[in-house]
Amino acid sequence: MDLDLAHAQLILARTPAVLRAWRGGLPPAWIDGTEGPDTFSPREVLGHLIQGERTDWIPRARRILEHGTAVAFDPFDRFAHRRLLAGREIGELLDEFAALRAGNVATLVAWDLDDARLGLRGRHPELGEVTLRQLLATWVAHDLGHLAQIGRVMAKQYTDAVGPWHAYLPVLHRRPTP
Amino acid sequence: MDLDLAHAQLILARTPAVLRAWRGGLPPAWIDGTEGPDTFSPREVLGHLIQGERTDWIPRARRILEHGTAVAFDPFDRFAHRRLLAGREIGELLDEFAALRAGNVATLVAWDLDDARLGLRGRHPELGEVTLRQLLATWVAHDLGHLAQIGRVMAKQYTDAVGPWHAYLPVLHRRPTP
Repeated sequence: MDLDLAHAQLILARTPAVLRAWRGGLPPAWIDGTEGPDTFSPREVLGHLIQGERTDWIPRARRILEHGTAVAFDPFDRFAHRRLLAGREIGELLDEFAALRAGNVATLVAWDLDDARLGLRGRHPELGEVTLRQLLATWVAHDLGHLAQIGRVMAKQYTDAVGPWHAYLPVLHRRPTP
Repeated sequence: MDLDLAHAQLILARTPAVLRAWRGGLPPAWIDGTEGPDTFSPREVLGHLIQGERTDWIPRARRILEHGTAVAFDPFDRFAHRRLLAGREIGELLDEFAALRAGNVATLVAWDLDDARLGLRGRHPELGEVTLRQLLATWVAHDLGHLAQIGRVMAKQYTDAVGPWHAYLPVLHRRPTP
């Protein structure tokens, strides 16, 4: 499927509500469980999404619109969210993510990008030339991948509790995301 | 983690709201996309969850409470949901799932199961003896696994659109659920 900007905006706009419906009120054991060493808990996924709103998607799109390929994107720090999470409640993090995302989607909508501008190119520090259209599709797929990760990480907390049904639940057999 | 009945009830009760936040208003291309032949679309996942509410989780729990291992569970038909989906709107399906799930969680809460009853055994037609505790943990993990599947199936609709970022998105490299 090609990027459809209206669909992308719809999906991006609702991720905070999905996270809120899923996680508000869950006990810490479910928010902080992981898939093993060096894997993200649902809380860390949320921190990583917040970090993306602050430093990744819209800042990179703006870089493309302002500089094209002349100035590469700043590298994204996959672990910067650990500082951001320290000492904060999950409700506060959900509120921050919702506010950042709403602002970023509003920015995207206000740009009112046409096909020509969606085809503009930027420079990724490792991947090389990429288009604005690819960046926006990646923003959507990245959200959906992390929602999938939260489901998988939570399901795995019951790996032993399901007993013999383990064999019938493919999610419990999937490798962790590093 | 062992089954905690209060947590399980919380997670089960919110799945309809997660699905509604995620999918209400999405265009058909996102509701009906799959991971390839013989894999479920998000719409089919919803049908499968409805079918589970009707014939799997609470009916099997009741079978354990009433008959123990004397009467095996009825087999679950993984494809019965296809009849159930025919000609129905996604909003109507979400409403049906929400109503069935609310009723089933209310039944579970009303049973007020203690440790002794959670340890009661039933008979699965293929897996043999299982406990009520394992059945309820499986209900939770099954929900979470299918939420993960929806995220993965949706993300994969942009497999090509993300261009070079494909390499950085583990969700796009995961095998389909058969």
